[in-house]
Amino acid sequence: MKDCIKVGLIGLGTVGGGVARVLLENEKNLGARAGVPIRLVKITTLVMKNPLPFPLADGVLTSDVNDILDNPEIDVVVECIGGVGAALEFARRALKSGKHFVTPNKELIAKFGAELLELARQNGVNLCYEASVAGGIPIIHGLKNNLAADNVRKLFGILNGTTNYILDKMTQEGAEFADALAQAQELGYAEANPTNDVDGYDVAYKLSILAGIAFNTAFRFEDIHFEGIRNVSASDIAFAKRLGYVIKLIATGVDRGAAGVELRVHPTMVPVEHPLANVGGAFNAVFVEGDYIGQAMFYGPGAGSLPTASAVAGDVVDIAMNHEIAHSHPSMTTNFGLRKSVPIGEVSCEYYLRLSVKDQAGVLAQIATICGDLGVSLKNVEQPEAEGGNAELILITHPVREAAMQEAIARMGKLPVVNKVESLIRVGLA
Amino acid sequence: MKDCIKVGLIGLGTVGGGVARVLLENEKNLGARAGVPIRLVKITTLVMKNPLPFPLADGVLTSDVNDILDNPEIDVVVECIGGVGAALEFARRALKSGKHFVTPNKELIAKFGAELLELARQNGVNLCYEASVAGGIPIIHGLKNNLAADNVRKLFGILNGTTNYILDKMTQEGAEFADALAQAQELGYAEANPTNDVDGYDVAYKLSILAGIAFNTAFRFEDIHFEGIRNVSASDIAFAKRLGYVIKLIATGVDRGAAGVELRVHPTMVPVEHPLANVGGAFNAVFVEGDYIGQAMFYGPGAGSLPTASAVAGDVVDIAMNHEIAHSHPSMTTNFGLRKSVPIGEVSCEYYLRLSVKDQAGVLAQIATICGDLGVSLKNVEQPEAEGGNAELILITHPVREAAMQEAIARMGKLPVVNKVESLIRVGLA
Repeated sequence: MKDCIKVGLIGLGTVGGGVARVLLENEKNLGARAGVPIRLVKITTLVMKNPLPFPLADGVLTSDVNDILDNPEIDVVVECIGGVGAALEFARRALKSGKHFVTPNKELIAKFGAELLELARQNGVNLCYEASVAGGIPIIHGLKNNLAADNVRKLFGILNGTTNYILDKMTQEGAEFADALAQAQELGYAEANPTNDVDGYDVAYKLSILAGIAFNTAFRFEDIHFEGIRNVSASDIAFAKRLGYVIKLIATGVDRGAAGVELRVHPTMVPVEHPLANVGGAFNAVFVEGDYIGQAMFYGPGAGSLPTASAVAGDVVDIAMNHEIAHSHPSMTTNFGLRKSVPIGEVSCEYYLRLSVKDQAGVLAQIATICGDLGVSLKNVEQPEAEGGNAELILITHPVREAAMQEAIARMGKLPVVNKVESLIRVGLA
Repeated sequence: MKDCIKVGLIGLGTVGGGVARVLLENEKNLGARAGVPIRLVKITTLVMKNPLPFPLADGVLTSDVNDILDNPEIDVVVECIGGVGAALEFARRALKSGKHFVTPNKELIAKFGAELLELARQNGVNLCYEASVAGGIPIIHGLKNNLAADNVRKLFGILNGTTNYILDKMTQEGAEFADALAQAQELGYAEANPTNDVDGYDVAYKLSILAGIAFNTAFRFEDIHFEGIRNVSASDIAFAKRLGYVIKLIATGVDRGAAGVELRVHPTMVPVEHPLANVGGAFNAVFVEGDYIGQAMFYGPGAGSLPTASAVAGDVVDIAMNHEIAHSHPSMTTNFGLRKSVPIGEVSCEYYLRLSVKDQAGVLAQIATICGDLGVSLKNVEQPEAEGGNAELILITHPVREAAMQEAIARMGKLPVVNKVESLIRVGLA
């Protein structure tokens, strides 16, 4: 038993600053809970904020990352710089030198998690990444430990606060995407270059991590089909509402047995009575269905300095409590085989389709013929009042394979009477 | 490192049967996740179901509990008999002989948790009780491990599926308590003698356990103020709805700093927009507020054979993963001092009060005089249409100390114009 757990922190930005604050401000409680003192002994940062929002003892700040990575006294390295450049190098060096490694870096884990977990296993240390998915919500622990006796069959997540905030604004105020995005940027909920959030990359990284644990395998980021929310319009949201749905950006993972695992991120019409439909603003939530537990949901802040820092510091406490043992991540090790993911073309669900068409007779007949030829069965068709020679056509299908649906859309797009296929949104959680 | 973790199960009823099924049916996955095989080697039961719903190997069933408790091969004892008679004796014997002990028994932990955790610590083994609160929801782990770096300030829980089901029925169908209870009994959601559920004992046990962890102390069951739902009427629910509230049986724990911790279980008017307001049917949920995480909620099945069994088996996997270390429960050990609980008389909140009164002039003046004398400030008064000489009077107060409110009620009850104080329901989560 060590008589003290010493922590080195790399990065002092939004999350790193929060981690420093939690570890310093709450040092006494953390030690009491872990049963061993936890000390933040070194911090390195490239961008020094002056003045710091909290006092540091002499010698804690260093400009040289080697003061942490080569320091034999340090037990746990916390990385808060993001990206997969320096962060990857630091992770490899820390683990190889027998230091535990804690990170909130989803891109690092989604892309290099398997390699790093194997390194951790070989060196008898922990790699912890609770904060990499859904910020303060303990969903990684939830899946890895608490549901370890269960078999998760389905997982649906709202994993990005920015897009949830934007869709919420659009739903509540009838705003269009561009306006809601501009508002989110003004409030600091969205970045100047919002592509990582609004085009689905962020959620895809997180789904890759969650699904690996939930379904006992290592998924490659390339296996995830993902779409963002740019094409969702105020009229789609209004239409969804009339049908009893709310549009959310949902990460879906479904175990289809021998066929593989479905992994997809896209705007989804969620029934209003489903618990995920009520997750508002910048909150995140993960809904799981397991063989034994049935249905459960974890809900909380998906981002932010202190919630994320709480999860990072929780990992440090966990390591301190178990500091002689390496918790390997079983789903990415050799205990289970590598499972295949279901190609998106093989996925079946109901679709909502909004077309801009010419306001003339016979349009629906042409569309319906294409659907009939491809086995796409229509559940619901609406033609709102036309305006100025153009009309809208809204279709809801019965469940159908994505490949057939995509072929139908391609054919529809070539019809002279169709101006544009405006939106395609999957309906329901399944 | 042991090459196999051997489990003995005491009790084969609803939960015990589920545990046996999960451990046997999912043995391969559990071993792969834990990194070590987990075998259910002995089961003892007083009431043998014939035939068993799953096959057992020869020699697994035994009529003698000593085949488990005195068996040097067994590493983990799982108790599923309930109560605090034999279960307590078995827990003490198992822990003293160096066996890990896993239990879903809330009464055992609420009343004897501190003693048993100390025994576990002395003997270097684990006492795990994830399933004792909120069935399949991993709230114990959530508070003990995942939020270990945070400081929980407030905790609100829907911890009893039976009462939530009954209140839900009353809300949706306008049913009175007795009818909704009868329905719940018919469907098997409520027991023939429902007092443990509907009078709040079950929730009080669970709050005692959760609050001990959340607020780093050992609470005595006697410190919990608890009330059930027998006095909630259809008209209270209808009135709450008009004001924008749903009535739920809420377990409340609030850290009031030096004043102590508020611990109370009672019907509460929950604002409809709060996530707990939407927790329907027999589901459970725990809502927490911490210094760093902000707000988070855990939602899932609160009872049932398989969800509870999943949580019990999850504890066994956890022990197997960490099998050389004792995780003591820091909040019940000497790492933190014993905190005091706030006497119920010192608690302040808004109150809803429904009185049956004589239909005559001057009633409100007499009531208002009592309130004024005691500093109970009224926010809202309603007098619905009277019927047959009797009337109802409904009052909502501003926040006021419970002691003053109780004195006001006592005085009101003595007024000749007051037939009865029908209900007193706390308003809001605070």
